[in-house]
Amino acid sequence: MPVPTITWEGGEEGSAHLIDQTLLPESYRIVECRTAAAMWDAIKRLAVRGAPAIGVAAAFGAYLGIQHSSAATGADLEAELLRTCDTLATARPTAVNLFWALNRMKRAAASGRHLDAPSLRRRLFEEASRILDEDRAICRKLGEVGRGLVRDSGSYVTHCNAGGLATADYGTALAVFYAAKDEGKRFTVYADETRPLLQGARLTAWELHESGVPVTVIADGMAASLMKSRKIDAVFVGADRIARNGDTANKIGTYSLALVARAHAVPFYVVAPISTFDLTLAHGGLIPIEERDASEVTQMAGKRVVPEGVPVWNPAFDVTPAALIAGIVTECGLIEAPSAERIAAVFTTGRATN
Amino acid sequence: MPVPTITWEGGEEGSAHLIDQTLLPESYRIVECRTAAAMWDAIKRLAVRGAPAIGVAAAFGAYLGIQHSSAATGADLEAELLRTCDTLATARPTAVNLFWALNRMKRAAASGRHLDAPSLRRRLFEEASRILDEDRAICRKLGEVGRGLVRDSGSYVTHCNAGGLATADYGTALAVFYAAKDEGKRFTVYADETRPLLQGARLTAWELHESGVPVTVIADGMAASLMKSRKIDAVFVGADRIARNGDTANKIGTYSLALVARAHAVPFYVVAPISTFDLTLAHGGLIPIEERDASEVTQMAGKRVVPEGVPVWNPAFDVTPAALIAGIVTECGLIEAPSAERIAAVFTTGRATN
Repeated sequence: MPVPTITWEGGEEGSAHLIDQTLLPESYRIVECRTAAAMWDAIKRLAVRGAPAIGVAAAFGAYLGIQHSSAATGADLEAELLRTCDTLATARPTAVNLFWALNRMKRAAASGRHLDAPSLRRRLFEEASRILDEDRAICRKLGEVGRGLVRDSGSYVTHCNAGGLATADYGTALAVFYAAKDEGKRFTVYADETRPLLQGARLTAWELHESGVPVTVIADGMAASLMKSRKIDAVFVGADRIARNGDTANKIGTYSLALVARAHAVPFYVVAPISTFDLTLAHGGLIPIEERDASEVTQMAGKRVVPEGVPVWNPAFDVTPAALIAGIVTECGLIEAPSAERIAAVFTTGRATN
Repeated sequence: MPVPTITWEGGEEGSAHLIDQTLLPESYRIVECRTAAAMWDAIKRLAVRGAPAIGVAAAFGAYLGIQHSSAATGADLEAELLRTCDTLATARPTAVNLFWALNRMKRAAASGRHLDAPSLRRRLFEEASRILDEDRAICRKLGEVGRGLVRDSGSYVTHCNAGGLATADYGTALAVFYAAKDEGKRFTVYADETRPLLQGARLTAWELHESGVPVTVIADGMAASLMKSRKIDAVFVGADRIARNGDTANKIGTYSLALVARAHAVPFYVVAPISTFDLTLAHGGLIPIEERDASEVTQMAGKRVVPEGVPVWNPAFDVTPAALIAGIVTECGLIEAPSAERIAAVFTTGRATN
């Protein structure tokens, strides 16, 4: 690591380059996005996924929407940007970073609407680039804050992919592992395969293995048995949206893993940038949960595994109550035993004070 | 239902006919087994699976091993049967019904070793046929005992396939649903897809749907979210081996489901014939757990989903502690809050007295 999950090449006239994560680990292919529509499609079909990476992708998607604009004024360019943002916002409903990044682009446009169009265009390019750079810096900081939670010779479980592939750089949950490895610690990670789309088997196993971190894949239903039969020190997962009280939406199966961890007294940590918090939502029950197409469950590598005519329920995310979370690792520090009060304090002071 | 999971055709000179469950739901194909080796292979590769059906298959497998014997005496025939049984016993290590059925065949041989070879051969055929007939009767009885636990308009979760396809007839856990349906009750069943081999998606969904019971498939990691967001009345699962104290080995993922059910105060029921109990084992920690080939997790419909070089942990079963089990439905009645004392009482009196 880092793998170039999402990069921008060619300056203001350039384009975004993404690893097509739907093809991993069988093939490693870079998709170039030259239009907002191409970026919308990449987000929608999960070629790029993971809350922070979606934020970066959305910011560049917004820029692509106005890159070749013939708008005469800054105000016209802003109007075009807003339309592009409205479209991009429909790609995934749960990851708050998508909206957070689009809002940053909109604010940059609003603050520059008095500029001429080329100047505002440059400012929007700089804002998207800044979001990318900040994501890289935040990943490193998450690793720094969290690495003390990993012990030498420990064993850990993670779910889905909250790694370099989910961000522009080092990852969120996996940043903790990369930073601990950089300190010279040796440990083992068990990766839930993460049905239905197998991000754990395909992506987490791939990037940890490539980085020299010992990783073993298990089916999602095996974590309970694993915790009973082998010593597991902690669980680290990412997040797609965190409510004001610490309730955390993440990939489906996370809540189940949190319950299983609690039953075995295994500490359960969420690792996420501050941009993942949605302070407008009082609790996790208010987080919109994306339901995805049944074919993700009924088909496997093109082969039908559920009989014709049988329905499927396929929510992409679930919500883990704050009470099951030992701590949230953020770039502002570790929020232990997260609660509305402790989270509010971080937003007030800019740092977690446990 | 019933589907002809395993039948015997052609009398003493005949052969066993099995649905090849590895091909469902894509294709429905009957495999004919004419030798003990063919039956060993069918059990090993899960063409026939489910603890009770494995018992029936093993009994006929043992008979096939001596069907064309040229043994001169009953004692010689018994010796051949013992050798066949030793081989068949290696096919699957966890399902106790396999050993239970082979022991019945051995006892029948021991009691008839004074007979001439043709008479003993007939007796062994009759014993295998009796095991099949008893399994059918037990399935019906399990349904009768358990159907009162299903309410009209209720919603239920099941894991793996403890249905007609797991037995010679009506199933164990699914027998409860079939019997409740026969009473005119209407209800919904959520079937965990059951990774890695998808017996829930492929087999349970298939047979419930064929039988007109509304069934919805979910990925294993979705059960917790399901129980939080929709009212679930109970969980029903089968068992591969039950220790003296009620600890229950069943398909991997069952223990996780039991923990999740407990967290949501959803009663968790095991449905299994008395032959599933192994009174030689004081607790579930002593049940041998089969570990199966990594390829079950790393390959999906022939496509590699785990990167080369990444190991997999693939236990086929886990153990649910008795403390998480609301009751065990047996042909002798419902053993509520199972414990060593209550289980011993059933074996002493022949019935559960709650």
